[in-house]
Amino acid sequence: MLKVSNRSAVAPFHAMDVFAKATRLAANGADVISLAVGQPSAQAPQLVREAAAKAALEANISYTNALGRDELRQAIAAHYADAYGLDIPASRAAVTTGSSAAFSLAFLALTEPGGRVAITAPGYPAYRNIIRALSLDCVELETVDGGFDVDALKAAHLDKPIDVLLLASPANPTGSVLSEAELRAIMAACAEAGIVFISDEIYHRLNFTADDVCAASISDDAIIINSFSKYYCMTGWRIGWMIVPEAMVRTIERLAQSLYISAPDIAQRAAMHAFDATGELDAIRDTYRANRQLLVEQLPAMGLPFAAPPDGAFYAWMDVSRYTDDSMAFAHRMLDEIHVAVAPGIDFDPYHGDHRLRMSYCGSQDQVSVALSRMSDWLSLQGR
Amino acid sequence: MLKVSNRSAVAPFHAMDVFAKATRLAANGADVISLAVGQPSAQAPQLVREAAAKAALEANISYTNALGRDELRQAIAAHYADAYGLDIPASRAAVTTGSSAAFSLAFLALTEPGGRVAITAPGYPAYRNIIRALSLDCVELETVDGGFDVDALKAAHLDKPIDVLLLASPANPTGSVLSEAELRAIMAACAEAGIVFISDEIYHRLNFTADDVCAASISDDAIIINSFSKYYCMTGWRIGWMIVPEAMVRTIERLAQSLYISAPDIAQRAAMHAFDATGELDAIRDTYRANRQLLVEQLPAMGLPFAAPPDGAFYAWMDVSRYTDDSMAFAHRMLDEIHVAVAPGIDFDPYHGDHRLRMSYCGSQDQVSVALSRMSDWLSLQGR
Repeated sequence: MLKVSNRSAVAPFHAMDVFAKATRLAANGADVISLAVGQPSAQAPQLVREAAAKAALEANISYTNALGRDELRQAIAAHYADAYGLDIPASRAAVTTGSSAAFSLAFLALTEPGGRVAITAPGYPAYRNIIRALSLDCVELETVDGGFDVDALKAAHLDKPIDVLLLASPANPTGSVLSEAELRAIMAACAEAGIVFISDEIYHRLNFTADDVCAASISDDAIIINSFSKYYCMTGWRIGWMIVPEAMVRTIERLAQSLYISAPDIAQRAAMHAFDATGELDAIRDTYRANRQLLVEQLPAMGLPFAAPPDGAFYAWMDVSRYTDDSMAFAHRMLDEIHVAVAPGIDFDPYHGDHRLRMSYCGSQDQVSVALSRMSDWLSLQGR
Repeated sequence: MLKVSNRSAVAPFHAMDVFAKATRLAANGADVISLAVGQPSAQAPQLVREAAAKAALEANISYTNALGRDELRQAIAAHYADAYGLDIPASRAAVTTGSSAAFSLAFLALTEPGGRVAITAPGYPAYRNIIRALSLDCVELETVDGGFDVDALKAAHLDKPIDVLLLASPANPTGSVLSEAELRAIMAACAEAGIVFISDEIYHRLNFTADDVCAASISDDAIIINSFSKYYCMTGWRIGWMIVPEAMVRTIERLAQSLYISAPDIAQRAAMHAFDATGELDAIRDTYRANRQLLVEQLPAMGLPFAAPPDGAFYAWMDVSRYTDDSMAFAHRMLDEIHVAVAPGIDFDPYHGDHRLRMSYCGSQDQVSVALSRMSDWLSLQGR
């Protein structure tokens, strides 16, 4: 009999279980509104889809350089000039198989087994799981109202040295956004302590209250991770990128050669057109902005206050403590009874997850509006 | 300054450096014949390309179940019935982002850091690099003439217990093939010693001297890794699969959820048509068979005997000791002087790599024939 390893005993994604159940119910004819996962309901831009179709029929789809096609790396570099006014050479851009691959590459490049990687709680559950699967120690720093406590980081580092801090802004699941001053303070503390800073910028361009701040504008030593999955609506294509310090490029290349060979070529050929589709993509973002406005107006009024300010990404992080101590059972009941799927908080937050739900608002305005109406009626029947 | 980890200090792929140089030379107008990498020059079958183009334009390209689309898992299960007469339930099939992802998933599922994974030398260099990057101990068992020495495995296990044995048949870089009796003996030794057996079957359907033997026909405890990259000509699509024991499915699913989310959806949608394209693919294989015949007739005659019998895959593993003690320099000189790119042996074999070259014969018959003619002329000018 096979014995599986301890390090593979990572938690499942409960949101995916809810999502799977929602998909099953929908397949059986139920009018399900699926707001459980962070997947835009819009498809990739037309330019991207057409480029992919043409490549599928005509191009020589092949392994590429492990760091990605030159044209795509140059397009990524140009994006940093356009979006942030930053001069990043294409040589620092590494194309990855989604941000997922970027996390593994960064952790392997920077740590030995037993190393310590700090993340926030609440946070993206795959962070925690990748860290554990790679035999690293996961330090979860609790945030309050989405804010980051630099002193807590310093204290944890003093307790036992931390190798890497990984932060997202805008954040999943909270939607909270760090100001430039906050980001600078965090990065200064990391520099002083010798902690490598990884900035997960996958929700950039989805910031509804302020301008995006790229960590590369603050330090060349920061590692930037980004992806075409969110703003660019290309989840299923599995294509993302990193910006790494010049001195780390060859290490990432060597690891990527063996662990991934290259990112999917058809996705690389398609993604380079995504940067030219901002008109179409900004219109999709306007839908999220309107959805967010509906949530801001209606959720607190139905007894679901925000547990963090929904400033960016496309998530509402709701406090459901008025209704339940078991967000998982609550999410399943909501799905069963009113066919609205949201993610239980336990995926994201080991401390308060039982009292939290995450709702994705990257669906259509109609979906979000109908979901809110069903929830309002249903909640009025629940004991408080 | 960033300090990179010890575990990330894996060797580069020298074949990729030769390949990159070949590509550069070709871009500058040289008539380069590139036989350095294991990438079919034929493209994915027409059915596959058309399905991908249609999906790109019309489908909802999205994250899928971490184990893959149901239809693809069912197609994989049906393939085992068709090709081997095996009854493998679709629930045991896990779709992966190429075989690359399958190796990482299997190692993480089965080992703790410091665990021992045995492979052969010569062998596929990414095995060794993934093993090291995941902080595992790589036990390289030397093969002679492509044969596997079960006693050497037992001795190494006695020395210090081995957790996993990973073997490919047909093998890269040797092209050697294990008989069913040999495979049974190896798997019996593993079972007795408590070593998990991983069978890399990526070169199945490219066996020119015997029938393929699937390890799943010998034991349900074996882990099978396969891919659409080789016989199916889908390298750049990054799509492969595993067959895992029922008891390990959920572990692989959980790891895959966090480390990969899912394999690229467009590749999944396209790949399910690959099993229906065997007519087109068998015709491509016939080219390899003819290429192989040319090599068998001509290479030994020009002083390049086979270091292992070229029974399968699409590689010739050549002994170049008559001409050089430095296969790397030799490969570069051959590329510079006659524009034929082959892979230096040091990627594959820590013991005899300086005296070996690997030639891929998955190009067109014309390419292989012209390459042989150039090599014959050139070698006649080299000192022996």
